[in-house]
Amino acid sequence: MPVKSKRPVVADAPAPVSNGVLFAPARTASGAGAIDPRSVLSIADLSLDEISAILKMATDLEQEDPLRRAERLFKRRVALLFYESSTRTRTSFELAAKSLGADTALISSLSSSIEKGESLKDTGITLKALGAECIILRHASSGAPWLLARETQVPVLNAGDGMHEHPSQALLDLRTILTHRLGAKKANAVKPDSLAGVTVAITGDILHSRVARSNALLLPRAGATVVFCGPAQLLPDQAALIGPGVRIERDMDKAISEAQVVMMLRIQKERLAGLHLALEDYTRRYQLHTDRLHARAPEALVMHPGPMIRGLEITSEVADCPQSAIAEQVRHGVAVRMALIARALGGQA
Amino acid sequence: MPVKSKRPVVADAPAPVSNGVLFAPARTASGAGAIDPRSVLSIADLSLDEISAILKMATDLEQEDPLRRAERLFKRRVALLFYESSTRTRTSFELAAKSLGADTALISSLSSSIEKGESLKDTGITLKALGAECIILRHASSGAPWLLARETQVPVLNAGDGMHEHPSQALLDLRTILTHRLGAKKANAVKPDSLAGVTVAITGDILHSRVARSNALLLPRAGATVVFCGPAQLLPDQAALIGPGVRIERDMDKAISEAQVVMMLRIQKERLAGLHLALEDYTRRYQLHTDRLHARAPEALVMHPGPMIRGLEITSEVADCPQSAIAEQVRHGVAVRMALIARALGGQA
Amino acid sequence: MPVKSKRPVVADAPAPVSNGVLFAPARTASGAGAIDPRSVLSIADLSLDEISAILKMATDLEQEDPLRRAERLFKRRVALLFYESSTRTRTSFELAAKSLGADTALISSLSSSIEKGESLKDTGITLKALGAECIILRHASSGAPWLLARETQVPVLNAGDGMHEHPSQALLDLRTILTHRLGAKKANAVKPDSLAGVTVAITGDILHSRVARSNALLLPRAGATVVFCGPAQLLPDQAALIGPGVRIERDMDKAISEAQVVMMLRIQKERLAGLHLALEDYTRRYQLHTDRLHARAPEALVMHPGPMIRGLEITSEVADCPQSAIAEQVRHGVAVRMALIARALGGQA
Repeated sequence: MPVKSKRPVVADAPAPVSNGVLFAPARTASGAGAIDPRSVLSIADLSLDEISAILKMATDLEQEDPLRRAERLFKRRVALLFYESSTRTRTSFELAAKSLGADTALISSLSSSIEKGESLKDTGITLKALGAECIILRHASSGAPWLLARETQVPVLNAGDGMHEHPSQALLDLRTILTHRLGAKKANAVKPDSLAGVTVAITGDILHSRVARSNALLLPRAGATVVFCGPAQLLPDQAALIGPGVRIERDMDKAISEAQVVMMLRIQKERLAGLHLALEDYTRRYQLHTDRLHARAPEALVMHPGPMIRGLEITSEVADCPQSAIAEQVRHGVAVRMALIARALGGQA
Repeated sequence: MPVKSKRPVVADAPAPVSNGVLFAPARTASGAGAIDPRSVLSIADLSLDEISAILKMATDLEQEDPLRRAERLFKRRVALLFYESSTRTRTSFELAAKSLGADTALISSLSSSIEKGESLKDTGITLKALGAECIILRHASSGAPWLLARETQVPVLNAGDGMHEHPSQALLDLRTILTHRLGAKKANAVKPDSLAGVTVAITGDILHSRVARSNALLLPRAGATVVFCGPAQLLPDQAALIGPGVRIERDMDKAISEAQVVMMLRIQKERLAGLHLALEDYTRRYQLHTDRLHARAPEALVMHPGPMIRGLEITSEVADCPQSAIAEQVRHGVAVRMALIARALGGQA
Repeated sequence: MPVKSKRPVVADAPAPVSNGVLFAPARTASGAGAIDPRSVLSIADLSLDEISAILKMATDLEQEDPLRRAERLFKRRVALLFYESSTRTRTSFELAAKSLGADTALISSLSSSIEKGESLKDTGITLKALGAECIILRHASSGAPWLLARETQVPVLNAGDGMHEHPSQALLDLRTILTHRLGAKKANAVKPDSLAGVTVAITGDILHSRVARSNALLLPRAGATVVFCGPAQLLPDQAALIGPGVRIERDMDKAISEAQVVMMLRIQKERLAGLHLALEDYTRRYQLHTDRLHARAPEALVMHPGPMIRGLEITSEVADCPQSAIAEQVRHGVAVRMALIARALGGQA
């Protein structure tokens, strides 16, 4: 009697969470004893002490002599498994791994076996058997990194899963803010009051943003207040339930007036069109432009995870202004990711 | 008077062999004195002594200190020319080359000049002029590696050509079987009786499988019997004529009852549909599921070259069972390919 | 009041130049003090002394021990930003960078954020923030490298911009010709009379060719005469105005009769069709075949930047004949590009 598989379909990753559960509490690794603890799947997995260790290691690695640094993970193998295209995150992880001396293998959706129907689980098992000691995963389905970590028992670094999380982005954003707030030296550690009194206004398409979600889970733990801003279609009221220290302010002028950090998120024109939001109306209410910035938040740090659409959510002038920390964020990203990879492979700091 | 080229068309690779000649005797390198003898185009090109040397080198390289290993081919150049996408074979060769210290260049159909109409010959000549000392070729046309080897005189490793051959897969399958049969130590050499008494049942789409073909050409030379299994549409009677030690058994229960190794091949749903084979009927007759495995071949080694479709040719339970050597095959692949690349570049073991 | 961006569109690169201005004088870097002088955007930017230094460095690097060479730029970062696919140029730059020990990151249009609407400027800023010390750019828009160099202030190497320039190709062509004319030793420097008495006939689609343009800007400065050849649709009369030492000869037999170098350019069938040029007529008048070569230029060097279409602009017989320097050009390309990258990163020769 043939055994009928319960899963004749290809994908074994959980379906993307629906909007309704986007802000459900983060899944913990409970009952997942097999997940390698050096994985970073959700920013919620990391204690402040662990984050401090990562920040410290990021600085050490950043300052280390490149020749010595390249000995740390010399010829060890790191797989970059990208089911979605991404210049900045992929290149950031890739250069971070190479800086540590590791060999990298990039498997992107365009060149992979995905079209042949292989499941994420089997691709993961194959990468492990090929010698990958860490898999960096970008996937369109929320939760995919958990599946991969559980099935392979290899350390997995979540490089963005659907609308769910982007923990390395939250870490680099934290490092950017800490550096500006406390100076480079004190940014090597984070405590529950490190960002006390700091308000971070995050404006844009909050609903679909894993960056917003990961930051909202992290920054309040360091003492910051997160204020989400955007129209109801892109920012449902429930979004404030993600955790403590998060609230909603629909008026952008008010939101940024009280903020020391103004973080803008990318807006996709197609999404606005689909929601019957007029582009002109959107930019009038939510665009960060010089007049608004100077009037409401003349000393705030301006951040954007990229890619940004100049002229839409942010003007060119603001993107390039002295308050902008956008390029800085990218720099912090390489340092943080070196630390995450070194940690995943057990390299000592 | 203008010379009219006889080949105004782009491709200079031979057309894919038709089904009728798929199992014609393997082309030898006759009249091809210019083909570098360190090429591996067909598994039939290698003597058992040469294969033993490759297996021995695979073990030596696998066990070597990674730092020393990276000195072997330090900064030498290996080109990966992939006209078909492939995660596992491409990544396996790529990581193998990097482990030896070589620089790699990946040219895949998506990023290459192929769309511009450049011939395989000219791409090969260009890669040689760029300094590539070995070209690893995956191509949809049977025979393409011969053309490339002849035109460039660079060592070429066939990473799969159409429905024709996949010699490095046969070598890693041999190593997997030898290791299980004789233990790791004795798996460093192969003799005409190494696999005496071993029957390998290969089930699935034999007709279109270069893996089936290369294994059928290799395993009997080591003393094994190969039993092909599948419906006539995917396994014509002539398939048994490929060489000595190969026969056909249409009943899967019978085929695996006598087998020490059960090798499953991927089935593409589209192909079944095209042949008017009902999926349900196919899985009932040819799927490897736990009941069948336990009843008929409770101690057999289960193999699959991947990518596999869980729930189609094999159930998830069987794929992950203790008898499964599927991940192991991938590990052997890296070792065997390190040896092939080292041999191609004349690196001493 | 919201600031309306003047550039709501994605691309911030200048539109491709129209045919009418293709042969306008090369833009100089005037008013672009911010462009890193180690950039190579146009071949016109380099003095003969600078070119001599590059040629000398190319030879030094080519002859250097690979282990020592790999120490030059060990672990420094070079970004390859390719908005158009290109096997030979991309692989040439990539292997050149790796030979010097640099880490490379390839961002191609297929895997990049381009589809997400990020501008060239922001991609460049991101690459700089990721640590790239040199960006090698291939772009479909003429002028894109200037924009990138100005916005990032990182050394940019133009690997082909639209129909505009391809300076590294001109340098490798110069090195090929010098080597044949003066011998390898004397090819390490170029003077205003180095190619005195040498005529280079360039035949084919001159109008759309950045190779033709860059060569026409460079070779006459070394004393050569450039003769363009082709039908009016692919070679407007104004093409001769590109600079001194360039003229037009419509009759190919005459053009190559006086030439010591015959350079053929790729012809795209689609372009001929679009211009209502009959393929047969074109090949009769402009194909380089053995009869024509032997009758008119029996000792000329045959060159082609590739990819070539055998049987169209050149016959297979000519492409592979002893006079052909086509593969040699590719070899010179790696050497020249090592020198350009070493120069861009300030590595001493």
